[in-house]
Amino acid sequence: MWGFCLCMQVSRVSLFDPLAQHVYNGLMRQSTLFSKTRKEAPKDEVSRNAQLLIRAGYIHKEMAGAYVYLPLGLTVLENIKRIVREEMNAIGGQELLMTTLQRKELWEKTDRWDDEKVDVWFKSQLAAGGEVGFGWSHEEPISDMMRSYIASYRDLPIYGYQFQTKLRNELRAKSGIMRGREFVMKDMYSYARTTEEHETFYNSVIAAYLRAYDRLGVGDRTFLTFSSGGAFTEFSHEFQTITDAGEDVVYLDRAKKLAINKEVFTEAVLAKLGVNKSDVEEVKAAEVGNIFSFGDVKSKQLDVYYRDEKGEQQPVILGSYGFGVSRMMGVIAEVFADEKGLVWPESIAPHKYHLVSLPGGDDAAKITALADTVYETLRAKGVTVLYDDRDLRAGEKFADSDLMGMPYRIVVGKKSVADGVLEVVNRKDGTVALKKLEELT
Amino acid sequence: MWGFCLCMQVSRVSLFDPLAQHVYNGLMRQSTLFSKTRKEAPKDEVSRNAQLLIRAGYIHKEMAGAYVYLPLGLTVLENIKRIVREEMNAIGGQELLMTTLQRKELWEKTDRWDDEKVDVWFKSQLAAGGEVGFGWSHEEPISDMMRSYIASYRDLPIYGYQFQTKLRNELRAKSGIMRGREFVMKDMYSYARTTEEHETFYNSVIAAYLRAYDRLGVGDRTFLTFSSGGAFTEFSHEFQTITDAGEDVVYLDRAKKLAINKEVFTEAVLAKLGVNKSDVEEVKAAEVGNIFSFGDVKSKQLDVYYRDEKGEQQPVILGSYGFGVSRMMGVIAEVFADEKGLVWPESIAPHKYHLVSLPGGDDAAKITALADTVYETLRAKGVTVLYDDRDLRAGEKFADSDLMGMPYRIVVGKKSVADGVLEVVNRKDGTVALKKLEELT
Repeated sequence: MWGFCLCMQVSRVSLFDPLAQHVYNGLMRQSTLFSKTRKEAPKDEVSRNAQLLIRAGYIHKEMAGAYVYLPLGLTVLENIKRIVREEMNAIGGQELLMTTLQRKELWEKTDRWDDEKVDVWFKSQLAAGGEVGFGWSHEEPISDMMRSYIASYRDLPIYGYQFQTKLRNELRAKSGIMRGREFVMKDMYSYARTTEEHETFYNSVIAAYLRAYDRLGVGDRTFLTFSSGGAFTEFSHEFQTITDAGEDVVYLDRAKKLAINKEVFTEAVLAKLGVNKSDVEEVKAAEVGNIFSFGDVKSKQLDVYYRDEKGEQQPVILGSYGFGVSRMMGVIAEVFADEKGLVWPESIAPHKYHLVSLPGGDDAAKITALADTVYETLRAKGVTVLYDDRDLRAGEKFADSDLMGMPYRIVVGKKSVADGVLEVVNRKDGTVALKKLEELT
Repeated sequence: MWGFCLCMQVSRVSLFDPLAQHVYNGLMRQSTLFSKTRKEAPKDEVSRNAQLLIRAGYIHKEMAGAYVYLPLGLTVLENIKRIVREEMNAIGGQELLMTTLQRKELWEKTDRWDDEKVDVWFKSQLAAGGEVGFGWSHEEPISDMMRSYIASYRDLPIYGYQFQTKLRNELRAKSGIMRGREFVMKDMYSYARTTEEHETFYNSVIAAYLRAYDRLGVGDRTFLTFSSGGAFTEFSHEFQTITDAGEDVVYLDRAKKLAINKEVFTEAVLAKLGVNKSDVEEVKAAEVGNIFSFGDVKSKQLDVYYRDEKGEQQPVILGSYGFGVSRMMGVIAEVFADEKGLVWPESIAPHKYHLVSLPGGDDAAKITALADTVYETLRAKGVTVLYDDRDLRAGEKFADSDLMGMPYRIVVGKKSVADGVLEVVNRKDGTVALKKLEELT
């Protein structure tokens, strides 16, 4: 008989806590966070990013190349998306959301349905008859869709982007969230009237990406990289973050702030870019962004034309701009982690502070009361804080805190009660500052 | 040679506009919004919600049952998610993100892999060998995952939820975004120690759902509905919104604020619920939420046990709570639309105001200047506004504005310049108020 007595009486007054909007998950008391730390990652997990992220309770391995984002991990992922979203909006990007299900007929038009041509398709049979594909990329459907919105030159330019879960039927998946069968990508597509208009936007994307990498904390180790342009242009451009975990080899000219992918590292390219061979160093790197121009090739295949000022039909100039969101999270985990665990940049950390209370002895109640006060005060000011209120030894709490990697740890113990100052430890360099509560907000 | 000269010089100073965070898309000038209104929806589109949403530029039909969310539509979708997220967080929900890719072995354990048992599976072959499924539901993987985090009674209860794009291989898909092959759902799963603990949470979810429907503007027409409990319990509970576009028939007792699904509308059930047959009315309705208890059945199948205070193994009590996010958007479109178009509740409208400038005659420049001022002032105050700055006749602008359905239209024309007051039209009831700019912020 339960389930329909109490429920009729419940208040419809909202319990919504306005503070909850400052963090992706409202929950900040570690005693109630279900995703506990672990001593060991699964035995079949060979990548360092996934090992750490699993042990720290950020992700869970569902299968090779497919990971669940747990509350803390999802917060990092959303924080990265927020930064990328802001930068895309700032250059005129319009966010939308394409579908995962893909039409066979459309991909046949550009000769990319056949498994011989694209070897990462997941495909299935429709119950209603016929085959359907699962989105590994979205140039074709978004460009086909844009035909509905592009008639005249007045309708252009258009810059559309999305955050999409891409599905790719990779043969191997051993790089954790740096290269999976299921991953989150920001992909943007530009539709321009002329090559000049296209180039101006292309350059503004480069600038926006560089700003995003700066904000994500990897600006100083992420470089615009010249790569093969394939069938469409001389070069495409990648953004490569230097890390030994990367799959690529690039030649880096630090002074010129550019790199050249191994695949196009020739004398001719060096000459063209004005780079001296003696100035470059060979480094391993992970591709965290990739942008390129399709020119008018794809528009002609997909029939994306506009009427110019003279009333003549012209093919639209198409550009494509990828940003690996979940890969970025994996790369950031790799490059900042130390022997104790993860180290998040403040801009994307799930919480700025990790508040660790160490109640004990005669002052136990006072210590807990002070930690509660710190927690509530930070929350009230909209500062994100994870509160380790668990009944564990100091050593265990510190080890967990190091593993989880919030930028600053606030320790509340006997000394804090005695002299009213809080010990604030910088996770990155271990420096300790003594601060009053007011100084933290 | 383009693409690598300018880009080296670009500023890394962020262009991020803090106001952009108040709306999902930074863009608010209609002249640059790519998703234009249309006179006609596709001929094969029979549902009213999709016809209106397509014509108004909120969604685009990719294929039957799969729709693209355009900038305005994505904003509505995200606004609905925000409300649901806040209510789930308020009752202790922890947000996470499961995977789309699903393991065959896991679903075999509960006998739900076979197409004879579950007829909406999309399945594919893995390049690495074996079959993989695409998530149509997530009880199995999340419950299997929770085994990693549940050992003792101290680890419980856990309330985990996600917003996930579900893929279902439906034979027919003719209801627009009210029932698709690809749709966004909030699904929550509760893991409790005892039936009592489970029931308390189950009731708090009912309360949270009712608050969410209130905030979404459909509280007065959305009813807790008793439905079949299947193999697990006597009843499950649905939330049904009254609309002729709905697929369900329910018997509604308005005074008692509850309904009974046709499938369990028997004398015995009426008696049990204390409802008189003469007090109910038969109405068509759309299921916008569905919650039910699995008891310990699924936990036993999937081996989800915890150690109680006495050290004994006990099966975890499992509940499941669905909320149709994209369906909700379709239902809201259906129930509020009038002959002129969409009518959004303020809580989820892409923009609160639709600012329509009508420059013309000698005052054209002054009118545009005033409209620009209104736009900038509202933006500066963080009020969402779509600015119709297009060079079109008043009639066209008003028709578009009616079709698109923002809660309030601000008209800036000759009169506004002359007497300094703005005409504010309520989209819902057509009432007109004359207001000064200061009164709008």
